[in-house]
Amino acid sequence: MDFNFLVTQITQKQSFLCVGLDTDLTKIPKHLLQEEDPIFAFNKSIVDATAPYSIAFKPNIAFYECYGLKGWQSLEKTVSYIKTNYPEIFLIADAKRGDIGNTSAMYAKAFLENMPFDSITVAPYMGEDSVIPFLSIKDKWVILLALTSNKGAFDFQFMNENGEKLFEKVLKTSQKWGNKENMMYVVGATKAEMLQDIRTIAPDHFLLVPGVGAQGGSLNEVAKYGMNKHCGLIVNSSRDIIYSDSSESFAKVAATKAENLQLQMKELLKLYKVI
Amino acid sequence: MDFNFLVTQITQKQSFLCVGLDTDLTKIPKHLLQEEDPIFAFNKSIVDATAPYSIAFKPNIAFYECYGLKGWQSLEKTVSYIKTNYPEIFLIADAKRGDIGNTSAMYAKAFLENMPFDSITVAPYMGEDSVIPFLSIKDKWVILLALTSNKGAFDFQFMNENGEKLFEKVLKTSQKWGNKENMMYVVGATKAEMLQDIRTIAPDHFLLVPGVGAQGGSLNEVAKYGMNKHCGLIVNSSRDIIYSDSSESFAKVAATKAENLQLQMKELLKLYKVI
Repeated sequence: MDFNFLVTQITQKQSFLCVGLDTDLTKIPKHLLQEEDPIFAFNKSIVDATAPYSIAFKPNIAFYECYGLKGWQSLEKTVSYIKTNYPEIFLIADAKRGDIGNTSAMYAKAFLENMPFDSITVAPYMGEDSVIPFLSIKDKWVILLALTSNKGAFDFQFMNENGEKLFEKVLKTSQKWGNKENMMYVVGATKAEMLQDIRTIAPDHFLLVPGVGAQGGSLNEVAKYGMNKHCGLIVNSSRDIIYSDSSESFAKVAATKAENLQLQMKELLKLYKVI
Repeated sequence: MDFNFLVTQITQKQSFLCVGLDTDLTKIPKHLLQEEDPIFAFNKSIVDATAPYSIAFKPNIAFYECYGLKGWQSLEKTVSYIKTNYPEIFLIADAKRGDIGNTSAMYAKAFLENMPFDSITVAPYMGEDSVIPFLSIKDKWVILLALTSNKGAFDFQFMNENGEKLFEKVLKTSQKWGNKENMMYVVGATKAEMLQDIRTIAPDHFLLVPGVGAQGGSLNEVAKYGMNKHCGLIVNSSRDIIYSDSSESFAKVAATKAENLQLQMKELLKLYKVI
């Protein structure tokens, strides 16, 4: 998917919502456990219910790998179902991979070629040659970790060299490898005020923002500090949407939750003159 | 596997060799492609041939993920075969995972509980809560990236805050989370002279050292600067061993390559008085 197509989706759907598919058998409604593939059954219902309000879905790969072969099968079915039925959706493999060049190339093949993901989250620790292989596939995106939403973000990401923090160095250095057409950054909503600083370094790039909702981040703050003229934001919500109800009406409740966020997003897109 | 068991393996086998299973269908001997599961067939032959000279095997997870479901099946068969037939072998999932706490817990379950890996490589960028879940399983190990063997290592790992480099900060900070009984570090052999500095920060931890052979690192240098009284080194070789021959004799040639390394390692273990 290219930059313009993504921006068009956002303005048409009046939304920059990503729904995180962190699908956990211990958390999905009990009645689904009788299904042949409960993970896929849950995902299908959530996707059908929330797709009208979302521009992206983000399967969290760990939640599939932990079920081994069956998990991979559910993942492949899920992404194939989404791309077939909602081809406009931006698909994110939340995988946080990153390895030496020839190994990163294998991960790129796994997610961006063999599966129909549009993008993959990548960890920057190993530097340029660990990231480049993901950037060499047309219309596919790297979403590089810059400033994460968790407590451990403070351990290394704020390391300071002559006034430049590690996450700032990641933002600057990586702009030599990719551009706003094939690279985004992960910036946690729990550190929304930092978005101002980040926008001075990466004014035009899309930011994938986790941490709104269950992790405590504020949508208004994220838009205030992070939105640019093309929106430039994809805000993810996982648990708050997908696990808000465990009855037979779980998908309906998820749709309402997604719609509420979409309505807030519409107002913010208007407020900051994107639509 | 606990620390003492691992040290005993090293002194008994007079080896600190890890064989990397970076199994690539385009590189394995052509005659194996007729097998039902060529990846497993290759791995089984390599494992049987090299196990007498090795104390560890390290499947590189990307090489299995890129074949989707079939790749996972080959991976599961491989690790199960190794643990059943060579229970003394230390099994490393070279996965370089790392995510927020609840997600890292899922990766820990995938590799350290559902599969019989003894250890997993982990990327440090997201800090403490991304690493801790891997440390909470008895007799399982985190192998944390510190200083990697690739060119991109220089992009961020040498960032310097008041004289302390990022990889040094990773080594120091992570010692608050784990200890020499459940944590090792990845240190590339291509930077062997840095091992001296690393040993002042982490004198007792095991170091997993990739980069000997194909990537250009020297075994003698690694031992000179990195060996401690318990050996403290696991040196990995992948391509140089597993792809040294593509005829029907490939396993025999791999065995000879592994044996040659083991004989060098035996001399080094004697030279530095580990055995």
